[in-house]
Amino acid sequence: MSSWVWLNEDYCPAEHARVSVFDRGFLFADGVYEVTAVVNGQLLDFHAHMQRLQRSCQALELSLPWPVGKLEKIHETLVARNHVQEGSVYLQITRGNPGKRDFHYPDTSVPPTLVVFTQAHNILQDPRAERGLSMVTCPDIRWQRCDIKTVSLLAASMAKMAAQSQGADDAILVRDGLITEASSANCFMVTPCGKLVTRALSQAILPGITRAALLDICQQHQLGIETRAFSPDEAYGAREVFITSATTFVMPVTRLDGNLIGGGRPGSVATRLRKAYLARFGAA
Amino acid sequence: MSSWVWLNEDYCPAEHARVSVFDRGFLFADGVYEVTAVVNGQLLDFHAHMQRLQRSCQALELSLPWPVGKLEKIHETLVARNHVQEGSVYLQITRGNPGKRDFHYPDTSVPPTLVVFTQAHNILQDPRAERGLSMVTCPDIRWQRCDIKTVSLLAASMAKMAAQSQGADDAILVRDGLITEASSANCFMVTPCGKLVTRALSQAILPGITRAALLDICQQHQLGIETRAFSPDEAYGAREVFITSATTFVMPVTRLDGNLIGGGRPGSVATRLRKAYLARFGAA
Repeated sequence: MSSWVWLNEDYCPAEHARVSVFDRGFLFADGVYEVTAVVNGQLLDFHAHMQRLQRSCQALELSLPWPVGKLEKIHETLVARNHVQEGSVYLQITRGNPGKRDFHYPDTSVPPTLVVFTQAHNILQDPRAERGLSMVTCPDIRWQRCDIKTVSLLAASMAKMAAQSQGADDAILVRDGLITEASSANCFMVTPCGKLVTRALSQAILPGITRAALLDICQQHQLGIETRAFSPDEAYGAREVFITSATTFVMPVTRLDGNLIGGGRPGSVATRLRKAYLARFGAA
Repeated sequence: MSSWVWLNEDYCPAEHARVSVFDRGFLFADGVYEVTAVVNGQLLDFHAHMQRLQRSCQALELSLPWPVGKLEKIHETLVARNHVQEGSVYLQITRGNPGKRDFHYPDTSVPPTLVVFTQAHNILQDPRAERGLSMVTCPDIRWQRCDIKTVSLLAASMAKMAAQSQGADDAILVRDGLITEASSANCFMVTPCGKLVTRALSQAILPGITRAALLDICQQHQLGIETRAFSPDEAYGAREVFITSATTFVMPVTRLDGNLIGGGRPGSVATRLRKAYLARFGAA
């Protein structure tokens, strides 16, 4: 059964959803995106995603002519029409199709392209949350504005393939000797003395929506959290390592570069934070 | 009058040339490209471009199932059908459309997408070659594999817009205090004592086809050339600065960050090399 896609002001079957080869998303990676998780047919933290979308658009001087209410309606309609109980909604905005190839941004008469589609997959009962991920470190070769959620994702894709070729689940990226984040998630650790640590926001990492929610949860529960960078060596010796993203929530890392973390079993902090995060949305 | 585009094994009018929103070129910037200049209806240095295309594909484990002869035929047919006397042919290959969004490369049953189109513009009688370019330096925030000619071009596009907003023609990129290259061209200078200098090949710059041709011309004419990085300060004090690319050939830079280069007039080395480059193809 075909699924529905929103493209250029209308719903259409996925196999008919096409953009011009002159679209700047295709020629220049000149576009931004968001992925919102769906659990029990409900969007998780939708408004936080739309706030970050606005931030990405502003950073690139990309116009965002659709009110959030309209974007929400599109998301909800696609979730319903495509019968998504669990999975995600993907939204991408590009600088549109000026009908020719030119590095310079087109004038504002060229409307941006908006694409929204859904993907159904099990995210709540993910067996990896029980066993933990095996990850490898990999040089962070991405550009220097990783705080903008653009579709320039080739380096992230290459890192995931490098991890796969080593038999690992995913990659953690390292720049100047310090972990930035995972290939598509933020990274946390719990030090041997029990301190929760994650890298501070900067242009080197994505301001994760799940990361922000965890910081909020920690504050509510008066759990201290230190925001600073840490090295792979520190992570090898950590009590826990975990990553966070919109569709994996809180995911323990039990092996990093062959080193067992926390004895190779998911730790209590990651497990509790995963539950607390899902409980926020009545999804636990 | 509509122009023709080659897409997925057939010619089609430009306004019908569309790719799936699930194409990896659109979702992940997972694609590579080449731009070949056309002068007097003839392709310049086509085979060198195809060699670099093969290199880009290999670096990304991207299959290239079309023989060079077939790609050449497509180029020639489009030049003829679109009546291009002067301009360029753009070719892009992406990792195709797996019908869903997943960072991991799809299996090899998913065919790559091939798009080829032409753009007509004056490149031989470019008035900027007479007066020289005004350029500004700009931080090089691109990823660390600039030697692969991918469609991850947002940083280059941003640099051109930053230059435009300062009233300049284009941007020269600087990383760690040294010039890497221009936003879409390689960079050369002639020192005060007459030495020609350009940065050595590495993962920090594109292995330019025009750059390679100039190095070859220099060798033929027994002109020494030093391959090393240089700083903006050194460029400010240079006798000449010029940039090279497939469609601008050799283009003098007469102003950099407000500093006049060579008294603000195109220098003799750039002018001679431009002529020598075009003479190679009987295009001078």
